[in-house]
Amino acid sequence: MHPQLRSDSPTRSALAKRYAQVRAQTLALAAPLTAEDCVVQSMPDASPVKWHLAHTSWFFETFVLAPHLPGYRAFDDAFKVLFNSYYNAVGDRHPRPQRGLITRPSLPVIRNYRAHVDAAMQRLLETPGPADALVTLGLHHEQQHQELIVTDVKHLLSCNPAKPAYLPAWPLTPVAPRRQGWIGHAGGIVPIGFAGDGFAFDNEGPRHEVLLRPFELATHPVSHGEFVAFIEDGGYRRPELWLSLGWDRVCTERWEAPLYWEKLDGAWWTFTLRGMVQIDPATPVTHLSLFEADAYARWAGARLPTEFEWEALASSAEVSGNFLESGALHPLALRETTVPGQLAPLRTHCPAMNLPLYSPTAPIAGAKRG
Amino acid sequence: MHPQLRSDSPTRSALAKRYAQVRAQTLALAAPLTAEDCVVQSMPDASPVKWHLAHTSWFFETFVLAPHLPGYRAFDDAFKVLFNSYYNAVGDRHPRPQRGLITRPSLPVIRNYRAHVDAAMQRLLETPGPADALVTLGLHHEQQHQELIVTDVKHLLSCNPAKPAYLPAWPLTPVAPRRQGWIGHAGGIVPIGFAGDGFAFDNEGPRHEVLLRPFELATHPVSHGEFVAFIEDGGYRRPELWLSLGWDRVCTERWEAPLYWEKLDGAWWTFTLRGMVQIDPATPVTHLSLFEADAYARWAGARLPTEFEWEALASSAEVSGNFLESGALHPLALRETTVPGQLAPLRTHCPAMNLPLYSPTAPIAGAKRG
Amino acid sequence: MHPQLRSDSPTRSALAKRYAQVRAQTLALAAPLTAEDCVVQSMPDASPVKWHLAHTSWFFETFVLAPHLPGYRAFDDAFKVLFNSYYNAVGDRHPRPQRGLITRPSLPVIRNYRAHVDAAMQRLLETPGPADALVTLGLHHEQQHQELIVTDVKHLLSCNPAKPAYLPAWPLTPVAPRRQGWIGHAGGIVPIGFAGDGFAFDNEGPRHEVLLRPFELATHPVSHGEFVAFIEDGGYRRPELWLSLGWDRVCTERWEAPLYWEKLDGAWWTFTLRGMVQIDPATPVTHLSLFEADAYARWAGARLPTEFEWEALASSAEVSGNFLESGALHPLALRETTVPGQLAPLRTHCPAMNLPLYSPTAPIAGAKRG
Amino acid sequence: MHPQLRSDSPTRSALAKRYAQVRAQTLALAAPLTAEDCVVQSMPDASPVKWHLAHTSWFFETFVLAPHLPGYRAFDDAFKVLFNSYYNAVGDRHPRPQRGLITRPSLPVIRNYRAHVDAAMQRLLETPGPADALVTLGLHHEQQHQELIVTDVKHLLSCNPAKPAYLPAWPLTPVAPRRQGWIGHAGGIVPIGFAGDGFAFDNEGPRHEVLLRPFELATHPVSHGEFVAFIEDGGYRRPELWLSLGWDRVCTERWEAPLYWEKLDGAWWTFTLRGMVQIDPATPVTHLSLFEADAYARWAGARLPTEFEWEALASSAEVSGNFLESGALHPLALRETTVPGQLAPLRTHCPAMNLPLYSPTAPIAGAKRG
Repeated sequence: MHPQLRSDSPTRSALAKRYAQVRAQTLALAAPLTAEDCVVQSMPDASPVKWHLAHTSWFFETFVLAPHLPGYRAFDDAFKVLFNSYYNAVGDRHPRPQRGLITRPSLPVIRNYRAHVDAAMQRLLETPGPADALVTLGLHHEQQHQELIVTDVKHLLSCNPAKPAYLPAWPLTPVAPRRQGWIGHAGGIVPIGFAGDGFAFDNEGPRHEVLLRPFELATHPVSHGEFVAFIEDGGYRRPELWLSLGWDRVCTERWEAPLYWEKLDGAWWTFTLRGMVQIDPATPVTHLSLFEADAYARWAGARLPTEFEWEALASSAEVSGNFLESGALHPLALRETTVPGQLAPLRTHCPAMNLPLYSPTAPIAGAKRG
Repeated sequence: MHPQLRSDSPTRSALAKRYAQVRAQTLALAAPLTAEDCVVQSMPDASPVKWHLAHTSWFFETFVLAPHLPGYRAFDDAFKVLFNSYYNAVGDRHPRPQRGLITRPSLPVIRNYRAHVDAAMQRLLETPGPADALVTLGLHHEQQHQELIVTDVKHLLSCNPAKPAYLPAWPLTPVAPRRQGWIGHAGGIVPIGFAGDGFAFDNEGPRHEVLLRPFELATHPVSHGEFVAFIEDGGYRRPELWLSLGWDRVCTERWEAPLYWEKLDGAWWTFTLRGMVQIDPATPVTHLSLFEADAYARWAGARLPTEFEWEALASSAEVSGNFLESGALHPLALRETTVPGQLAPLRTHCPAMNLPLYSPTAPIAGAKRG
Repeated sequence: MHPQLRSDSPTRSALAKRYAQVRAQTLALAAPLTAEDCVVQSMPDASPVKWHLAHTSWFFETFVLAPHLPGYRAFDDAFKVLFNSYYNAVGDRHPRPQRGLITRPSLPVIRNYRAHVDAAMQRLLETPGPADALVTLGLHHEQQHQELIVTDVKHLLSCNPAKPAYLPAWPLTPVAPRRQGWIGHAGGIVPIGFAGDGFAFDNEGPRHEVLLRPFELATHPVSHGEFVAFIEDGGYRRPELWLSLGWDRVCTERWEAPLYWEKLDGAWWTFTLRGMVQIDPATPVTHLSLFEADAYARWAGARLPTEFEWEALASSAEVSGNFLESGALHPLALRETTVPGQLAPLRTHCPAMNLPLYSPTAPIAGAKRG
Repeated sequence: MHPQLRSDSPTRSALAKRYAQVRAQTLALAAPLTAEDCVVQSMPDASPVKWHLAHTSWFFETFVLAPHLPGYRAFDDAFKVLFNSYYNAVGDRHPRPQRGLITRPSLPVIRNYRAHVDAAMQRLLETPGPADALVTLGLHHEQQHQELIVTDVKHLLSCNPAKPAYLPAWPLTPVAPRRQGWIGHAGGIVPIGFAGDGFAFDNEGPRHEVLLRPFELATHPVSHGEFVAFIEDGGYRRPELWLSLGWDRVCTERWEAPLYWEKLDGAWWTFTLRGMVQIDPATPVTHLSLFEADAYARWAGARLPTEFEWEALASSAEVSGNFLESGALHPLALRETTVPGQLAPLRTHCPAMNLPLYSPTAPIAGAKRG
């Protein structure tokens, strides 16, 4: 991510308040975790929660405080290397697969680091200055790491044979079954990329035009129940449904179901932040790889939408529903859309991130084959 | 290790006291560590300290309390799999390389587990019973894991770029340089293996006779200074000094010095439980692989002693010196032997273990080539 | 590659003649090789030449002869599994990384297999029938494997410390230095994909429209001399020039130059089908990875063209130059384009394949940054 | 193997005749193989037959001809590196796992290399000289590689799904079932190591004394039939029968039977130099790992003999039976020993090699537990 800075100027006090909110949210996500939960790295692609807590602070220290707050003193010079992620231009960094070996500094020290940075940031935000865009970027960056915290913690806990829950409560409410539909788009030259005054990541621009052919997009993500039908129809045993590289993975890694699924006594269960639960057929399927999503779409007589098709329809959808504030931290059951023929999936997304909230791959909202 | 049980009967109260001492020693070793230090596994061959704390308790629970204390209730049934090590006959076990993923149960829970087991053990030891030999075995087993705790923590901390110290104090006292000598043995038929009434591990017996040819054994382990001379004489670049498999490792893993050594500004440093320190030429070299020890001995015009040669001479040496109680947790500088021509190395060993205390390989006490 | 069959009907006798030509070309490529050269697999991504010779025959046997030549008898039923590549729908296949273990059937047997298939094919082609499109597809498929044969043999011979030549002769002629230029395109809605009556692979269609912005494309591929300038300007040591994944590869695999390059006595050499030769600054650079091509383009103040930009301009370029028939089997020195401002790179390409002839990655014909 | 040279002086003409015989035997072993069979390396531990043919000639060229035949000219200087095995002191060597990539020099060139060396050797052997011991060593070295040729070819052919035969003929003759017995040894101080005037490898000496306790050794190796009984008694599913490291291998590599065994339609088959054959219960089991041999012995209520126990009894056994000259290249069916209570196993061994002829591990001739 190379940040692209635009001028967006909330008042300074509003920014200070927003800063305090986002930083508090991060700590709230870590609150149910022990120091032990926060230090272990369960795979090279994941990072320890402690690292996330430190790295997001390192961002503000390196890019905002050091250049813009006169007299700022770094909390610990060793952190410059330890908590750099991939900003090669900023200097050395600690190798990613070894982040889980850093038992010291301890979690309390990292909490002090956050407090040190937060205090300095509040000082900086008391008076007007040139760093507003950088602060806003840092908050969006922190929200991305909030998403990674729950993703990475979920994987870590899934490796424990006791399958412990991150949180015991499950805010799921019973809902009526959804009715699936398709939304048409007439194609043509459409604008793609961020337009407006607020914040956007650099990879959301520059705005440009693309040419679309007419297509239809499903109103809802694919559900767990639909994916079970794919499995029961031999989806994981039929090479003709898969991309060639995908089929290689199916064979060599013996895939039989998505990540986190287990069949117990004839029923499908999946690991969630609440521990093992039986799958709910009405909820969106998650944690599919690209290969699984592609194979499902082919099986269903559809194809995955392109990024541009998705954006062309989704940018007009209502932004409301199940975000971080709901506490669910998981897509909830699909409901009827209030207006027939309108897109529902944004209910399960965090709009600032352009990705489904808790899944490495998007729920499938397949486009019909042209 | 398959335990071999002999009848050795201290009084029950002496055994209860010994139990309390050894178990407290284990907790004392973990005392300088955070919960984070105790959960991480730095390589597949190492185990987290928390696992050591739990596994040694599992031993008493499984082999002593469950069969011998009427009415004993296990602390947590899931621990039977989680903290089994390699006793395949006792049931399933958690895969060794994944011990570092067990963030839960947390360290406080494991401390409670130890307290639960200790309380039950004290009840069991109040009255005479048949389990004395098993308890004694369990205490020796626990002492072995004390040794592993410091070995494994040392490796973990060495992986941290900050090279933190386990303990800041270094109880090293200045000593006069040693005078190296050789102790002769006339050879002949000698008894090998444990003899006596006390405890011994099964692999210390059965006692039997072996035939030795005349040989000489060095009075002291090889020192850091001597090993530097080997390095500076091209020891790591001369294939004729190495076993063929060893030379392969030297080449493919680019060995240039022992584990934990680093050359900084022309001087050799090594990582210890006190952090990075400059090597002391007078102290025994440690953490050599078999290949390095063998190559050194060949360079020095000697060879490694056989297990039987070592035991034949060492069993008559005085047992005194730098054990766990000294707090050094490291071989100290070599001193003059009080009686010329007598063996010194036991000063740096823990007699119950038949291995140097904090090294995966023995300091070299080379035998002269016959 | 999923073949897409279109009706293209040369006369049967023309097709029979074309069949004989292409099949003979394949054998001619293998002619300089010993049976030993033809059996070894130098890496999992490569296949032995014997496998290429057999697999292309298997294609005609499986898709043309078995269904369309009455009474055809397979040469050897075991070949159905042994020489299937990735047509999972056709049945089992031998694991790709183990193709190099198949010392039997021997090369003479495989030559007999080819002769058996060729004889049957000539019988089939004597009379009109429905399989013309399949035969045409099989010939293009065979030409793709001709390309793989030289690619794979080059890698194999490069692994031999003697760096032997595939062919000793080098048909390079001295040329005047080129003058680099840029060709402009006005953008707009352009058609992409195959249009016409002849053969095309399925991934060359369906024809559709895309929207392009104005851009410029270089008239020539990047030369060896230009790439040396990139290296000497620190190209492999500057993270800001590389994609993040690319920089990881540079660091972990210690890249310092393209595949096959070696620096000897201050001069750059590269391995070719004629053995090691000093690089010719005027010839197109080859064997770049995507990451290297991308980094070069960024260094040069340009970017890689999209597939669509390339096709929009290349489809109007003259098709002439250095194909398989030239015997060079390598891009030759760059010449002045006869008409200023016209595209030259097709001289070094095989037009039927959409890829440079003997390189896993395209010579860079960078588009100027918009 | 570091050669230890003793003075053993057959007449020069006898040595020249012996040289010609052994060298011809090597070529005879390669005679059923194609150039393709001779170039491929099926695993890092194996070498291509062409490499064996060249390396044994390199031995004579390097250690005999270069220093002892005035005016000798090396066949090709590049071979000094290419066919050095592990004699690091002699210079560089080509990496072992890449021996299979050397398609050139071709097999005919290597045959010329052998002829070149043989002609020079015959010249050298015409007149008396100091190199007799080196020539004798070279012949024993060549015989070791004869053993490796059949071992390595067997593995290579086993990787081919067609399971081709090295030789179609099987010289097995029907025999009466054996009667198993035990031979006792009274123990005591016994001499171990080579004694005599002829040739011995350096690791067969120096002769020294060891102390044995009374033991019994089986008269015959364990048979295929006995090993089937072990398997059917759950041998591969009972951890208590295995060494801990062995059990790890059983689990992680899913061992269910020895190398080369396959169960087809309820019967056990094994891959041999004649292709797949049903196992003959009366013949010695082969290709066991140490772990399998150890587990079998424990299951049978015995233990593996030590090297010294084996040598103490075997050195007095009659040397006769099924050697290279028999052409079987495999242990044959066990016969009655002519004298009751005498050791039979040497029938299936090559006495010069101290190892069973065609197996990486010894047939089990278990000692009874003391």
